[in-house]
Amino acid sequence: MNNHTIVALATPQGLGAIGVVRLSGDDALRIAQAIFAGKNLLTAASHSAHFGRITQPSGEVIDEVVATVFVAPRSYTKQNTVEFSCHNSPYILEQIINLCLQQGAIMATAGEFTLRAFLNGGLDLSQAEAVADLIASHSAASHRLAMQQMRGGISSELDVLREKLIHFASLIELELDFGEEDVTFANRTDLQALIQEILDKINALVQSFALGNALKNGVPTAILGKPNAGKSTLLNSLLGEERAIVSPIPGTTRDTIEEVINIRGLAFRIIDTAGIRQTTNEIEAIGVKKAMEQAQKAGLIIYVYDAQKQPIAEVMQEVAALNLPNTHTIVCANKIDLAPVQPINDAVLGISAQHKTNLEDLKGLMVEKIGYNAHSNQILVTNLRHKQALEQAKAALEQALAGLSAGVSGDFLAMDIRHATQQIASITGRIDVEDLLANIFSKFCIGK
Amino acid sequence: MNNHTIVALATPQGLGAIGVVRLSGDDALRIAQAIFAGKNLLTAASHSAHFGRITQPSGEVIDEVVATVFVAPRSYTKQNTVEFSCHNSPYILEQIINLCLQQGAIMATAGEFTLRAFLNGGLDLSQAEAVADLIASHSAASHRLAMQQMRGGISSELDVLREKLIHFASLIELELDFGEEDVTFANRTDLQALIQEILDKINALVQSFALGNALKNGVPTAILGKPNAGKSTLLNSLLGEERAIVSPIPGTTRDTIEEVINIRGLAFRIIDTAGIRQTTNEIEAIGVKKAMEQAQKAGLIIYVYDAQKQPIAEVMQEVAALNLPNTHTIVCANKIDLAPVQPINDAVLGISAQHKTNLEDLKGLMVEKIGYNAHSNQILVTNLRHKQALEQAKAALEQALAGLSAGVSGDFLAMDIRHATQQIASITGRIDVEDLLANIFSKFCIGK
Repeated sequence: MNNHTIVALATPQGLGAIGVVRLSGDDALRIAQAIFAGKNLLTAASHSAHFGRITQPSGEVIDEVVATVFVAPRSYTKQNTVEFSCHNSPYILEQIINLCLQQGAIMATAGEFTLRAFLNGGLDLSQAEAVADLIASHSAASHRLAMQQMRGGISSELDVLREKLIHFASLIELELDFGEEDVTFANRTDLQALIQEILDKINALVQSFALGNALKNGVPTAILGKPNAGKSTLLNSLLGEERAIVSPIPGTTRDTIEEVINIRGLAFRIIDTAGIRQTTNEIEAIGVKKAMEQAQKAGLIIYVYDAQKQPIAEVMQEVAALNLPNTHTIVCANKIDLAPVQPINDAVLGISAQHKTNLEDLKGLMVEKIGYNAHSNQILVTNLRHKQALEQAKAALEQALAGLSAGVSGDFLAMDIRHATQQIASITGRIDVEDLLANIFSKFCIGK
Repeated sequence: MNNHTIVALATPQGLGAIGVVRLSGDDALRIAQAIFAGKNLLTAASHSAHFGRITQPSGEVIDEVVATVFVAPRSYTKQNTVEFSCHNSPYILEQIINLCLQQGAIMATAGEFTLRAFLNGGLDLSQAEAVADLIASHSAASHRLAMQQMRGGISSELDVLREKLIHFASLIELELDFGEEDVTFANRTDLQALIQEILDKINALVQSFALGNALKNGVPTAILGKPNAGKSTLLNSLLGEERAIVSPIPGTTRDTIEEVINIRGLAFRIIDTAGIRQTTNEIEAIGVKKAMEQAQKAGLIIYVYDAQKQPIAEVMQEVAALNLPNTHTIVCANKIDLAPVQPINDAVLGISAQHKTNLEDLKGLMVEKIGYNAHSNQILVTNLRHKQALEQAKAALEQALAGLSAGVSGDFLAMDIRHATQQIASITGRIDVEDLLANIFSKFCIGK
């Protein structure tokens, strides 16, 4: 079924000049040619575009289009592909898709073009997943991470780990083949060191998920503080200056209650802290609990206080009482434009939310606290599935490490390592059993 | 400014796989090449597609794209054109457009690509207008009319009229040049016959606007009748079977109060007659007036009555009382499935709205009453601007005809004919004064 020709509208529905209908599969050229009056697409060169007409069997002209031909394997799906660039009328696009269906194409399911790209080796699984992330990206950072992943960043990182594991696993499997002879191909000390090295790398990747996820979906940010400290004014000032890319795509903003602000390429999702505003007024158990729940979701807290009213020591006690030492926190002394103010020190940033004083410093601090260096090539895990697979691999490797210390036999070690390898391979969609076999049979020509 | 390079998103905003950014102008190839890493687009063949990367000046990859090059004059705008087929992320599309702007492109205004196609002779004005109609088309008939117009249907019809007028006008202008010598190049009887012939054709075109406009925007259709005759049931049955192409484009349906039904390629806009339902109950002046206003808007009336309750003669009196003899009317005897019914005759169609009996016959009758033959090549005027220009031309020609009868001098005739020619030329955007001069100087080489 992977070769059956599929058809779909590749561009969004809505107002626009151009709509693109895409055909991919063994019969793509034949089907396209059957409905196209113009150059013979069956003999057209790959990557060539041809002006012509789409016509009904009755001869009626449906549209004047440009047909672009991509000959296998030089296409996204690695299959013969034709893209019709049409006038973007719902009627025309429906008619052209219908004509393709009449000629034997079937409607593509969601993601089916990318699935084919994966099945035909054009992309690995994590790259395919990155295509969806790329399309949904709405900040420079989320875009950069998706692009890095699509271009094989995480895949090559994982491939290095995987190959080392496969190498050792195949040595151990070999021992099992020679089981009766009690040979030891795999040096246990080397294996221990290797597993520890891989564990360190996996740990780093697992830990990178917190940042990777925050960058992908926006850093959850809570503006906290007492009533009338200027929280809403600050939010509005930030929003007014750095409105997020407002996209018409449903689902770009994950939660409509939140406001998304793009600062220097990072998306910050401001969590609505209206609830906190009310409850901090009275220090009741329920109120504190609610405020804490909001704050605990945050990856960044901006704590705002009124520099005219509160001394800094009191504010620091309030911040300490949040009891979130692991959450990045910025304390802002607001209303510094209104004399007299309480003295502040380097631990806090003096701002005026209303007059936008020092907002650039605040934004710089927000970006700095997140600790993401756009120019490093650090690989961040952004996908929950990948994180979970890495955690599984980690558990298996820890078990292997314990087994090594306990001196368990090779078949137990092989099982753990195989499990870890499979988990890592599942991220890129490589079938590791085959890899293992190929590795054994290619490298060791035993002749058995 | 017509050569300045413009850039725009050519595809709709929204969820989809592909977004297309289009560049057109003298610098299109240079600008595209400046942001594209891959094949040298400056030397690429026209109509060739190239896989490559769009990169920031910093080297950061924005997207992997396919760039299709169209070398002037072989493009829609007749200018150098590059289309980038990108991943459809709002972030990516914004970045790519920004990069083009940084390289000197300017944002295209609405319709500017098509304006250039017109200015550069790729399309005439009526064809350019048809592009917008084509994109907005939502039924087979509206699509067919727009396609016919885009492919030059009305233009060639008008060109024939225009050329004949220009020929005679140039003869008359010639008489004026030889004014003192009192020569007569233009035979007055021939001119009278010609003007009458052209007037007949213009009249037919002006009259075709009622049908053309109805087909383009949907035939305004009122379902009338007494309360409980089954009007709403009929509407729902028709809607259930023949839902209009529901397009996500705002403005496709001109008025959200109306329901659009597509029957055999024709769109019918059902006018909400809820007001009539209430007011026909009591035969009051206000009620009748309201009902009549609705009915008068309609191009087609479906009058529904309860065949169990009303004898046909009484119904025919009600229909006659509408006093709309020029509006196509279908009378439906509803509830014919429930015995006993009053006898009906050929003047009415027996149906059961609830059980969908004879609905196919009703639909056939609706299409038949509109009198549009999809297979004829009749040119229909669908554009109000065209209709108004034709009416102006008609008035000028009627004046010329009156002038001929009264024996007015050549300069008055020339003025009227020139005015008529200009009006006709304004439809296709041709500048007739130049035409006139060219015609005179090319055909008559007087040597003056």
